[in-house]
Amino acid sequence: MREAFHDQLDSMFEDLAGICRLVEASVRLSTAALLTGDAEIAERVISADIEIDRARERVEDTAFSLLSLQQPVAGDLRTVVAGLRMVSELERMGDLSVHVAKIARLRVPHLAVPEEVRPTIARMAEVAEDMVTRVSQIITSRDVEAAIALSHADEEMDRLRRTTFTELLSADWSHGVEAAVDIALLGRYLERIADHAVSVANRVVFVVTGQNPAAARP
Amino acid sequence: MREAFHDQLDSMFEDLAGICRLVEASVRLSTAALLTGDAEIAERVISADIEIDRARERVEDTAFSLLSLQQPVAGDLRTVVAGLRMVSELERMGDLSVHVAKIARLRVPHLAVPEEVRPTIARMAEVAEDMVTRVSQIITSRDVEAAIALSHADEEMDRLRRTTFTELLSADWSHGVEAAVDIALLGRYLERIADHAVSVANRVVFVVTGQNPAAARP
Repeated sequence: MREAFHDQLDSMFEDLAGICRLVEASVRLSTAALLTGDAEIAERVISADIEIDRARERVEDTAFSLLSLQQPVAGDLRTVVAGLRMVSELERMGDLSVHVAKIARLRVPHLAVPEEVRPTIARMAEVAEDMVTRVSQIITSRDVEAAIALSHADEEMDRLRRTTFTELLSADWSHGVEAAVDIALLGRYLERIADHAVSVANRVVFVVTGQNPAAARP
Repeated sequence: MREAFHDQLDSMFEDLAGICRLVEASVRLSTAALLTGDAEIAERVISADIEIDRARERVEDTAFSLLSLQQPVAGDLRTVVAGLRMVSELERMGDLSVHVAKIARLRVPHLAVPEEVRPTIARMAEVAEDMVTRVSQIITSRDVEAAIALSHADEEMDRLRRTTFTELLSADWSHGVEAAVDIALLGRYLERIADHAVSVANRVVFVVTGQNPAAARP
């Protein structure tokens, strides 16, 4: 019974890592669409989101079946519930990259991101993508140190977001209100992807150590 | 045993309704701070958020204790898990109203919302507040029809958000980039509060009927 339980739990975590790889592709492609103005890539992100939603439903079914049939307690119970929360956050990260793709699509054949703020947004995209890649690995390896380290990447993201505000509120800004609003919202979406990545990593720390990251920090 | 279980479940739903009333106050005060430029009210929202976080922890503890000690299955299990999800969304609504309060505080002694977009933002604030009030009642009464009706309020919110974009992107916009960015982000935060309200109401439909709202619609 316990062995079957842990097999199913492992398989749930494999599914979570699989969803995280779908999210990774979604983040990568949406930011590629944004920086190249490629409508076809943007469409691909938007239509692929349904796969993430379906994969979420499968993980939820597994989690409910684990809870009903195996009636886990203590750490095992908290692990299954953590899995349910992780899958909600991963789905949300997918939704946020759809928002990024939609801004890209709205501005085709132009680019939503003006040249002078492009380095900052490109770096934010890189950080977001890297964080999601690391989260996939963290889910698979359950590497607590890697999970704790992820919060530093989030600090860079917060700094970059403040930089975008400095850029678009500077007296030199010549791209008008529409571009500024796009950048402000893009910054928000990318920042939220990063926040969710940290949160998913923190749940892995909790699953492995039974403690929240602040307490688990070496 | 079953009776004790249902008493604890009822008490979890009372706690959820209580958190929803805290969120209601937070939404009401944050939008009041926004529309009056009152820094003291904004501070109050920001510092009161810790109460929502603490109340969330209490509901989570109750839910875990229900899951561990009572080992519910089927509908009861889904109800406890729905409670866990509802409390996460309510907490998030509180965070979003803190974001609104922070924009208000940032612009003191001025107002973040220029006169010409004020009616739209004031109406968005009203809709958000009304939706959260209705959600408190829906949690208490488990009124499926009221829960399903809530999605119409969300449609008004989406329309209002599109109106803000029309206003701030019009040729007449004379308030510059900073005000436009504030309005775009405020619109996003209020829209997300409304989304979460609908989602919490949908979970009540699920708890009562065992079906998602589309299937439960009369």
